[in-house]
Amino acid sequence: MPNERFERGMARLAEMGHNSPIVSMLDETAPDMAKYIYEFAFGDIHSRPGLDKKSRELVIISAIASLGHAPLELKSHVNMALNIGLTRQEIIEALMQLTVYVGFPTAINAIFTAKEVFEERDRS
Amino acid sequence: MPNERFERGMARLAEMGHNSPIVSMLDETAPDMAKYIYEFAFGDIHSRPGLDKKSRELVIISAIASLGHAPLELKSHVNMALNIGLTRQEIIEALMQLTVYVGFPTAINAIFTAKEVFEERDRS
Amino acid sequence: MPNERFERGMARLAEMGHNSPIVSMLDETAPDMAKYIYEFAFGDIHSRPGLDKKSRELVIISAIASLGHAPLELKSHVNMALNIGLTRQEIIEALMQLTVYVGFPTAINAIFTAKEVFEERDRS
Amino acid sequence: MPNERFERGMARLAEMGHNSPIVSMLDETAPDMAKYIYEFAFGDIHSRPGLDKKSRELVIISAIASLGHAPLELKSHVNMALNIGLTRQEIIEALMQLTVYVGFPTAINAIFTAKEVFEERDRS
Amino acid sequence: MPNERFERGMARLAEMGHNSPIVSMLDETAPDMAKYIYEFAFGDIHSRPGLDKKSRELVIISAIASLGHAPLELKSHVNMALNIGLTRQEIIEALMQLTVYVGFPTAINAIFTAKEVFEERDRS
Amino acid sequence: MPNERFERGMARLAEMGHNSPIVSMLDETAPDMAKYIYEFAFGDIHSRPGLDKKSRELVIISAIASLGHAPLELKSHVNMALNIGLTRQEIIEALMQLTVYVGFPTAINAIFTAKEVFEERDRS
Repeated sequence: MPNERFERGMARLAEMGHNSPIVSMLDETAPDMAKYIYEFAFGDIHSRPGLDKKSRELVIISAIASLGHAPLELKSHVNMALNIGLTRQEIIEALMQLTVYVGFPTAINAIFTAKEVFEERDRS
Repeated sequence: MPNERFERGMARLAEMGHNSPIVSMLDETAPDMAKYIYEFAFGDIHSRPGLDKKSRELVIISAIASLGHAPLELKSHVNMALNIGLTRQEIIEALMQLTVYVGFPTAINAIFTAKEVFEERDRS
Repeated sequence: MPNERFERGMARLAEMGHNSPIVSMLDETAPDMAKYIYEFAFGDIHSRPGLDKKSRELVIISAIASLGHAPLELKSHVNMALNIGLTRQEIIEALMQLTVYVGFPTAINAIFTAKEVFEERDRS
Repeated sequence: MPNERFERGMARLAEMGHNSPIVSMLDETAPDMAKYIYEFAFGDIHSRPGLDKKSRELVIISAIASLGHAPLELKSHVNMALNIGLTRQEIIEALMQLTVYVGFPTAINAIFTAKEVFEERDRS
Repeated sequence: MPNERFERGMARLAEMGHNSPIVSMLDETAPDMAKYIYEFAFGDIHSRPGLDKKSRELVIISAIASLGHAPLELKSHVNMALNIGLTRQEIIEALMQLTVYVGFPTAINAIFTAKEVFEERDRS
Repeated sequence: MPNERFERGMARLAEMGHNSPIVSMLDETAPDMAKYIYEFAFGDIHSRPGLDKKSRELVIISAIASLGHAPLELKSHVNMALNIGLTRQEIIEALMQLTVYVGFPTAINAIFTAKEVFEERDRS
């Protein structure tokens, strides 16, 4: 049952060129999680005014990279960040900045994940 | 023995109106840590081109907030972020954005820490 | 602007005897966070069928205790867990069980936080 | 040298239909770790009265999922949880509940890990 | 009911001059946790041959400091480490080394916790 | 532009028989990260007096293992630890000691990572 929040989330993700398999991977096992991603994560939160899309993606990339254990989600956001105009250099700078706050291994692994995204985009 | 990196870090922190007690609290017990904060954290990393100061502070605030256990350091960066022109609303938006990626308790506690900074600034 | 999700979340929290100061502490600084707690955290998620309230509280207490850095939120859920009929012994057993999975210090600190709740309830 | 605690742990794991390769993978490199899993993790802690098996497994699944970096151990406990009568729906509900407390990426990855277990069981 | 493992743990803690309030704080709420600290944490694990006491304390201090949210437990182990002959400088060096692997805020906070221990010992 | 810190870091890594692919994997995407590894991580920090190489490696292995999500970096340090004379038994003892402080899953996964290193060394 689509609703305003769901459609705002869908539109937001479309604007950012979202094409991660995460949502479809949830469909079978936990379809309501996909719904909450659209409604809450992107319809409620990401669509809020007060902070532009690029800044939101820097904040998100920093948070997921700091977790250290979610490369699939990090790749999805590195891709969206590039789609909305953040440069590869800006993303790498953000990840290098993390070194000071979460340490070298976590920052380096995030750089490797970003590198995978860059290489996938270069190949396609 | 001051050096170019140390002085660049000192200058960078001065530009951001740094006045946290962290560095002086280290002086007695681990004076070289203070040196590394100036030289590496701010002289090498924070001073890099390729990402502006405001974006760096959003990335840093996101990372420290995601750790969840470093309110003193978070307060220091919320203060510097405000000093260089990020608004209270932008900082709160960044912390609300974290809810999706690190959960409500961690994001809420970071908001409480930011609130303390706002109240301290209102009183002074 | 109240809505069905908001009211379902309010009702759910009322059923669990919620009286933590967290929501009111957010009111001034991040009022929409309070709204999302009602709408999403309790209106959407906690109110879902498929898992009873006591089981949800055990899952939540385990997750917040595992974070290790959110005693205010842990206290709120220990209180609600007791209000809906989980016993002190069951909560302590759950926290002792965590020892195996997140280590002694994190489990012990959660036990200390639960102990504070027990003592507050004994005094009132 | 088997002992009462070791045997209680072995029996407990047998009751839960344990068949993870973790213990045998430890045998060569750290055989005493396998012993501590039997004696302490399952002989001392998991066998305690005061909380039933299903509740313990919900607590454990929540804790391991919250760590975010231990899919092998999470799979082992999702399997045991199903063996003792927790339903797939209950496990997915528990993992969806985590979204609020540890964020979407960590909860989603745990759902993907549970999905792998479900698929493995469907194939065998 | 004391047993060999319990007594070995007690003896081990006595050798290290343990005087943290943690164990007695558990007595009322979770007395079996105190038992497991003696039996498993110190009777089984800490008493193992193959790594000397000082090395074990460096490993433990590194792990608790890396958690970032357990200052009470960190203080207990910094005290024991000093009691068995690790120097203040060695402990501070270990915590400075952490900077590279877990980031500045977590390492700095651990240094502040160690500093509290040093000051308490200087006063007594 | 090599400098004294860079060369000290290179020499330190050479003394420890460093041969991880991490540095070369960074070269293309984030070459300055490789520079900071040499200059700061090994030229500034690891080369400090006050704690011997073996103790530093135990501290580092404990920290990276505690993170739980950086097996590539853990393998690199397990290799270097063996190269400078720590025994397999000492490394396994250190990782077993972690069980108490970060829980079984994280410690077990670190043991599996160390086991991979041992097997790679046995094959070559």
